[in-house]
Amino acid sequence: MSNLTLLGDQSVRYPTDYCPEILETFDNKHPGNDYFVKFNCPEFTSLCPITGQPDFATIYISYVPNIKMVESKSLKLYLFSFRNHGDYHEDCINIIMKDLIKLMDPKYIEVWGKFTPRGGISIDPYANYGKAGTNWQQIAMNRLANHDLYPEKIDNR
Amino acid sequence: MSNLTLLGDQSVRYPTDYCPEILETFDNKHPGNDYFVKFNCPEFTSLCPITGQPDFATIYISYVPNIKMVESKSLKLYLFSFRNHGDYHEDCINIIMKDLIKLMDPKYIEVWGKFTPRGGISIDPYANYGKAGTNWQQIAMNRLANHDLYPEKIDNR
Amino acid sequence: MSNLTLLGDQSVRYPTDYCPEILETFDNKHPGNDYFVKFNCPEFTSLCPITGQPDFATIYISYVPNIKMVESKSLKLYLFSFRNHGDYHEDCINIIMKDLIKLMDPKYIEVWGKFTPRGGISIDPYANYGKAGTNWQQIAMNRLANHDLYPEKIDNR
Amino acid sequence: MSNLTLLGDQSVRYPTDYCPEILETFDNKHPGNDYFVKFNCPEFTSLCPITGQPDFATIYISYVPNIKMVESKSLKLYLFSFRNHGDYHEDCINIIMKDLIKLMDPKYIEVWGKFTPRGGISIDPYANYGKAGTNWQQIAMNRLANHDLYPEKIDNR
Amino acid sequence: MSNLTLLGDQSVRYPTDYCPEILETFDNKHPGNDYFVKFNCPEFTSLCPITGQPDFATIYISYVPNIKMVESKSLKLYLFSFRNHGDYHEDCINIIMKDLIKLMDPKYIEVWGKFTPRGGISIDPYANYGKAGTNWQQIAMNRLANHDLYPEKIDNR
Amino acid sequence: MSNLTLLGDQSVRYPTDYCPEILETFDNKHPGNDYFVKFNCPEFTSLCPITGQPDFATIYISYVPNIKMVESKSLKLYLFSFRNHGDYHEDCINIIMKDLIKLMDPKYIEVWGKFTPRGGISIDPYANYGKAGTNWQQIAMNRLANHDLYPEKIDNR
Amino acid sequence: MSNLTLLGDQSVRYPTDYCPEILETFDNKHPGNDYFVKFNCPEFTSLCPITGQPDFATIYISYVPNIKMVESKSLKLYLFSFRNHGDYHEDCINIIMKDLIKLMDPKYIEVWGKFTPRGGISIDPYANYGKAGTNWQQIAMNRLANHDLYPEKIDNR
Amino acid sequence: MSNLTLLGDQSVRYPTDYCPEILETFDNKHPGNDYFVKFNCPEFTSLCPITGQPDFATIYISYVPNIKMVESKSLKLYLFSFRNHGDYHEDCINIIMKDLIKLMDPKYIEVWGKFTPRGGISIDPYANYGKAGTNWQQIAMNRLANHDLYPEKIDNR
Amino acid sequence: MSNLTLLGDQSVRYPTDYCPEILETFDNKHPGNDYFVKFNCPEFTSLCPITGQPDFATIYISYVPNIKMVESKSLKLYLFSFRNHGDYHEDCINIIMKDLIKLMDPKYIEVWGKFTPRGGISIDPYANYGKAGTNWQQIAMNRLANHDLYPEKIDNR
Amino acid sequence: MSNLTLLGDQSVRYPTDYCPEILETFDNKHPGNDYFVKFNCPEFTSLCPITGQPDFATIYISYVPNIKMVESKSLKLYLFSFRNHGDYHEDCINIIMKDLIKLMDPKYIEVWGKFTPRGGISIDPYANYGKAGTNWQQIAMNRLANHDLYPEKIDNR
Ligand SMILES: [Ca+2]
Ligand SMILES: [Ca+2]
Ligand SMILES: [Ca+2]
Ligand SMILES: [Ca+2]
Ligand SMILES: [Ca+2]
Ligand SMILES: [Ca+2]
Ligand SMILES: [Ca+2]
Ligand SMILES: [Ca+2]
Ligand SMILES: [Ca+2]
Ligand SMILES: [Ca+2]
Ligand SMILES: [Ca+2]
Ligand SMILES: [Ca+2]
Ligand SMILES: [Ca+2]
Ligand SMILES: [Ca+2]
Ligand SMILES: [Ca+2]
Ligand SMILES: [Ca+2]
Repeated sequence: MSNLTLLGDQSVRYPTDYCPEILETFDNKHPGNDYFVKFNCPEFTSLCPITGQPDFATIYISYVPNIKMVESKSLKLYLFSFRNHGDYHEDCINIIMKDLIKLMDPKYIEVWGKFTPRGGISIDPYANYGKAGTNWQQIAMNRLANHDLYPEKIDNR
Repeated sequence: MSNLTLLGDQSVRYPTDYCPEILETFDNKHPGNDYFVKFNCPEFTSLCPITGQPDFATIYISYVPNIKMVESKSLKLYLFSFRNHGDYHEDCINIIMKDLIKLMDPKYIEVWGKFTPRGGISIDPYANYGKAGTNWQQIAMNRLANHDLYPEKIDNR
Repeated sequence: MSNLTLLGDQSVRYPTDYCPEILETFDNKHPGNDYFVKFNCPEFTSLCPITGQPDFATIYISYVPNIKMVESKSLKLYLFSFRNHGDYHEDCINIIMKDLIKLMDPKYIEVWGKFTPRGGISIDPYANYGKAGTNWQQIAMNRLANHDLYPEKIDNR
Repeated sequence: MSNLTLLGDQSVRYPTDYCPEILETFDNKHPGNDYFVKFNCPEFTSLCPITGQPDFATIYISYVPNIKMVESKSLKLYLFSFRNHGDYHEDCINIIMKDLIKLMDPKYIEVWGKFTPRGGISIDPYANYGKAGTNWQQIAMNRLANHDLYPEKIDNR
Repeated sequence: MSNLTLLGDQSVRYPTDYCPEILETFDNKHPGNDYFVKFNCPEFTSLCPITGQPDFATIYISYVPNIKMVESKSLKLYLFSFRNHGDYHEDCINIIMKDLIKLMDPKYIEVWGKFTPRGGISIDPYANYGKAGTNWQQIAMNRLANHDLYPEKIDNR
Repeated sequence: MSNLTLLGDQSVRYPTDYCPEILETFDNKHPGNDYFVKFNCPEFTSLCPITGQPDFATIYISYVPNIKMVESKSLKLYLFSFRNHGDYHEDCINIIMKDLIKLMDPKYIEVWGKFTPRGGISIDPYANYGKAGTNWQQIAMNRLANHDLYPEKIDNR
Repeated sequence: MSNLTLLGDQSVRYPTDYCPEILETFDNKHPGNDYFVKFNCPEFTSLCPITGQPDFATIYISYVPNIKMVESKSLKLYLFSFRNHGDYHEDCINIIMKDLIKLMDPKYIEVWGKFTPRGGISIDPYANYGKAGTNWQQIAMNRLANHDLYPEKIDNR
Repeated sequence: MSNLTLLGDQSVRYPTDYCPEILETFDNKHPGNDYFVKFNCPEFTSLCPITGQPDFATIYISYVPNIKMVESKSLKLYLFSFRNHGDYHEDCINIIMKDLIKLMDPKYIEVWGKFTPRGGISIDPYANYGKAGTNWQQIAMNRLANHDLYPEKIDNR
Repeated sequence: MSNLTLLGDQSVRYPTDYCPEILETFDNKHPGNDYFVKFNCPEFTSLCPITGQPDFATIYISYVPNIKMVESKSLKLYLFSFRNHGDYHEDCINIIMKDLIKLMDPKYIEVWGKFTPRGGISIDPYANYGKAGTNWQQIAMNRLANHDLYPEKIDNR
Repeated sequence: MSNLTLLGDQSVRYPTDYCPEILETFDNKHPGNDYFVKFNCPEFTSLCPITGQPDFATIYISYVPNIKMVESKSLKLYLFSFRNHGDYHEDCINIIMKDLIKLMDPKYIEVWGKFTPRGGISIDPYANYGKAGTNWQQIAMNRLANHDLYPEKIDNR
């Protein structure tokens, strides 16, 4: 794990804008069996590109590793880099997914953002991906087809 | 996004009756991958067409964009336009779905309304749609077939 | 909707015993797309046919309309008519389902009763039906086969 | 306990109208220390005296016994006797309290009814009483003065 | 109760603007003991006086009757009359309290509004009142002094 | 229903040890349509066969009746008969299922026990069965294959 | 702690009937400051003295130690000794409190039982005690006077 | 209300650092009766002054107005101004309280921050204030003395 | 069951480091029907291999026994052996699964760890396995493909 | 804050046994107003001094600072130092309180531990303290006298 530069390094600075290059990986030690890893990220915030007002979301990232895995402290810093960056809800979710696909080349990944309301309405984008040439390509389509049949109860309080 | 006229325009007036023409769209920037967008709308109210008494609902709208996407502030104003409009629960849900299909031509859409009770009984209509010529037509049937196997606990309090 | 006699009629009397003939219908205005309507009925009560003691349940009725739909105020009066009527839990649920099938000839219907406990045990019957000659016949079997894989937590408090 | 006629008697009939005389008592075996007994009664139902439609409530009865205590099976039958009886919410609660005071002459008693909504509004009456000549008279006033500073969240679902 | 004109009258029209004169009373049948009556009103909506956008709240009204009590159907119509009326959150709550004091001359009353958020912040005004010359004047001050020591958890979802 | 000996018989004694012969049946009155009946049994207790300490569980029994159905009061007495009987968690669940299969010859049955923890770990066995020669044999395998994909949150408090 | 005979002794047998003499104590190591110790006991069961049917409760015991404290394993065995013992709900709670007062001579103790329903009603007795000659005698009266102003929501499910 | 410059002004920019001067007031229209106004602010974020990592909190602000009241949109912008500002949890809460006292000169105010955990521990500061020369000075002391007797359950998930 | 050495043996010592050899088995007494056994283990803790700080998780283990079953007290000691052992979240879960496969040769097994957050993000790994040559190999793939479509709500509190 | 040695120092080692000397303080910057600081610590674990088995608790520490305040990272390390240390539940809570009193000399402090069950019973000790010569001495007695009138619902799951 000599390629990990962030974990255990106290002097690392937080990035000041969107910064995908801060993401780091380590090797999957269990390549013999497919398995899931989920990150629960309730501390996501970005800015509205039109009004500049802050947006807040909980983001759930779930993936099946291939050879590389994302290191969690670098993921924290990457998500932090949206803090003063302006993007729409749907774009944030798709961008996060694409950056992690590019980084890890995972077998499968999904990203679900659950934002707080503006004007009485909240928006929850969900995107997923399965690697071509694996059975996860079809699984991704199936998971999308069965996405969120039971929307959680929302009352804005 | 030059076609967006409502977001960031403070002078917009709230419509006084049912008003589908207020809906606006913007372009899907991620056409390469199907994904879901959900709107949680707990502040819906309309009038009973017979008695004139107000009805209240939380409405969940979930769709897979095609080329166009509905702009959320225009959606807010559109839903507001039912405020002094009279229609039955089932009709509200079907009308909302059909207006959004006409607006966006989405790959998939579903609308679920959860109303407050009258006379001790509450009514929750659910409608969905998949675009002909895409795999979402069959998915829509499958989602309908598997709709709400676990009804939420309701005790009217 | 000239055939609706109960909605908006203040002088209607509550029936004093089981009374399926009080049920009324109106026409489905959206026959072009299959959709679900659910009634949440937490105020159901009947009598035990042996001991005469009252039974209480929340009843969930969910159906896909065909040509006719049940009017909700008549449904309220119909369910009220079990108030002083004695029947077992399983029978109440099956009778309600069969009366509504006879009334509406729906594409699909399901009825789930969740009763309060007697002697420390509560009973929850569930019945469903899909119209022969439609794809809802097979869907009904599938829904029954997948019924309630996650029983809700019950502790009698 | 030879004065208990209902507990363990299977042949008892349910009363057909309001019936305070069915209430029975037994002797407090712990007169040396004041203590509370609470009855949770979620299966209460009566009729609206104007429209005849059924009302439903959960009733909480809490008291400090003096010499006599109410037997719980007779309490069940007494509450059942409201089933086909018409009275307003506030009256039901005050009547139940007064009947139990007359029956038991308790040191303290309180009755709280939480009804299901009609027309979007639910009503929760609360009455209490402390026996004159005991410190419970002042306690009753204090409990009333501090009643329900934290109303439970209600959304009619 | 011959002075009640709304309950059981199907032809009553919903008022089109703020309308305190629609409130009706009936006599307290239990003047011998102070007691509480609470109304849970989760279906309140008004308009923002500046932007015209709809506001939504659950309103809890709790009072100790004196000689007169507010009739619940008239209360429903009164609250409905804010639907197309513009007022700030704090004003709505104080106005409702003052109208009910004027109507009923109660011993005690409190009104708590819990609104949905705008711009990520929600506002919950609470006002109360105790009749001069009764012990409820001091109790009102005590209840205000102890108001809401445990704010409910809010996350805007 | 002349074969029911327990319901309505006050003099029945509680068995003092494991007692499957106490189970009674009645005839299914709705043999024309398959349906589910679920028993929620939160008051189950047995003894550990090694240490003699008490075990507690909530047991969920769900079945599709064939010709015979288990009478609920006899089920209560049967479950009571484990009270002073020693058996492991997994054995209790399998034995209950097998006794009910022998009694009713159901089309389908499943039994799920959720025990309280010992040494910081709790054990939840689940067994099911589908009658050979019916489509419920395959359904049983499918239900087992999809069992409990969403384990409930447990924190031992 | 040489007087503890049960903790760490695997060979101890469970008592077969009500058995207060099994209770053991150890010395309070913090006599300089009054403090509370609470036992949460959700696995209590006894028998109805009339019908022999099992009763179930969660019992909360909270006390302020004086010189002696009850050892928790002996408390477990003591509570187990009600398993095949018949007593009314109110009596169980008062007996447990009195046995622990006799054992420990505490400054303060309270015992609250929350039983599962029989016939649709559940009973929750609460008793407390403050040692004469200490300020806990008055505190006990105050705690009783303020007992359970917010009854938990009960729906028997 | 001519002194309100932010509400309804779409062109306002979000401040880039701590900015108490952005706060605005309007006049209390109900000075005749003391009442509470609570702001629920779940979207607060600041930076750790040592490590630069983001902190997140829900902040509850509750006050009794005197002559001036804080305008909610200016409060939103003020809280936003902590976004890129570094301060400890305890300091943020005290500073917010002091800024609002300076702005409004309220009769009473309290501020409670509930932060997300760092290193497995979360910190919740609470400060309050009562205006000298009013009865709210003593009430503030009483509220502090009774603060948070029932800490909410926290498990970091 | 003569091969069980830990259950009922008070003198067993807790292991001081990772110790899979402590695991013991007993024979499956119900080999005729496949069934599930789930262990809920909310008291898992290990050390971070880089920083040495403690990690905490709830671990859910669910399996379908073949010939041998894991004895629960030995499982407790095995999980305890991670207490002072350093391993990453993903590795702990995969190691536990592989140790149990090696021990029991089960038809199916899955292990899900839900850890508390570090730096605002929590990680939940999930691995599963189906025995080659049985239908559980395909079921394992299906369960993985359908894993966690509904992530639980996480807010780090 | 030059006396803080732990915050921001990555090389600090976790202590291997009970270690109160690791605690550090910083100065209270708001000595002008009394206020509360609460630490939520759900990751506490120690060992049973008799059996060596691990105990788990959530510990809530709440205090009113005087001149010095405990630094949160040092608190984390201090609580960690119980990990391989043996002490009874009541002793852990009293020791933590006394160590923090010695460290900070606070105006007020309370410590509440909520442990997971052993043998079906869980134990929750609560201790508090008010500084002599301040009004917090009396407040401490009052808070103890009013401790936990509403025990949380516990079912060991
Ligand atoms: Ca709600
Ligand atoms: Ca909510
Ligand atoms: Ca509810
Ligand atoms: Ca409800
Ligand atoms: Ca429950
Ligand atoms: Ca509700
Ligand atoms: Ca919420
Ligand atoms: Ca739990
Ligand atoms: Ca319940
Ligand atoms: Ca319940
Ligand atoms: Ca939590
Ligand atoms: Ca949590
Ligand atoms: Ca949470
Ligand atoms: Ca939350
Ligand atoms: Ca629990
Ligand atoms: Ca629990």
